Amino acid sequence: MQNDQALAHALLLRRRAMAMTGRYLEDFAVAQTFGSGRLRVDKERIKTFAAEFDPQPFHLDEAAARDSIFGGLAASGWHTAALTMRLLVESELKPAGGIVGAGFDEFRWPRPVRPGDELRVESEVLEVRPSKSRPDQGLIKVRTTTLNQNGEPVQVSVGNLVVLRRPAHQTASEI
Amino acid sequence: MQNDQALAHALLLRRRAMAMTGRYLEDFAVAQTFGSGRLRVDKERIKTFAAEFDPQPFHLDEAAARDSIFGGLAASGWHTAALTMRLLVESELKPAGGIVGAGFDEFRWPRPVRPGDELRVESEVLEVRPSKSRPDQGLIKVRTTTLNQNGEPVQVSVGNLVVLRRPAHQTASEI
Repeated sequence: MQNDQALAHALLLRRRAMAMTGRYLEDFAVAQTFGSGRLRVDKERIKTFAAEFDPQPFHLDEAAARDSIFGGLAASGWHTAALTMRLLVESELKPAGGIVGAGFDEFRWPRPVRPGDELRVESEVLEVRPSKSRPDQGLIKVRTTTLNQNGEPVQVSVGNLVVLRRPAHQTASEI
Repeated sequence: MQNDQALAHALLLRRRAMAMTGRYLEDFAVAQTFGSGRLRVDKERIKTFAAEFDPQPFHLDEAAARDSIFGGLAASGWHTAALTMRLLVESELKPAGGIVGAGFDEFRWPRPVRPGDELRVESEVLEVRPSKSRPDQGLIKVRTTTLNQNGEPVQVSVGNLVVLRRPAHQTASEI
């Protein structure tokens, strides 16, 4: 019983430390999944984002969007990508050193994001490997799926993140 | 001489029409390249973009960024991607129906974007193919390289764009 309490306490301390320092390469494993909070996509923000970064009629104006390939106002894919990043940063993924993308093996938008959609993110670790050239770093391959309120994917990416290795003097029990 | 003038006039009319309607699938060919204007990356906009979409210390705060993997303030990759889209929309690429991405075969950020960097885009058509399922559409594969003021690539992508085919009743000489 005392052991259980000690273990629970240690896990609590570790969770707190993890929230501050993040996960090292050694803390990631294939098949881990991480959820996220939710973000609602605002119609006016769709238009102002597009006016700054993707000024095309189907992202700016309802009437023009109806006659376009999207059949109605749709968020810029880059707006969806940026919102996905926000959800990912605030998710439980939390690599030590931050979320630093080295590039993507796959990246697509299977369906449009509409005003009022509520997005969330699911990420899954596909691969964990130490760097050959940088002994203090490694890479994890992560599939990130952005889903709308109907559970339909609106963005799917498979990306490689740079993750720090745990410093040699520090063991899991110390953090 | 009169033929030359007529040809010049026809080319001028075509260029004007192209600017309004854009290029159909039939107007694209492998190895075509398109340049862009330039956009300067503002330090304050790096921080406000990050605050909304990518709130990590190395995009928000100079001091924190010095101790990070970037060694100094760097734009969010999604900010770079969004600025690239702006440059692309305003470039001479101009597909009829707009720039609509179906997904990427490759996407990476080879080096960070710094405050004050001046970005431009070069795009090259790698492949042109009609759609098997949609007779009114096709796909072009385009490599888009975003370069800083030193000519160094900061983003490289290979993406597939949905492009409308020229309507059957319309020939090139009519536009």
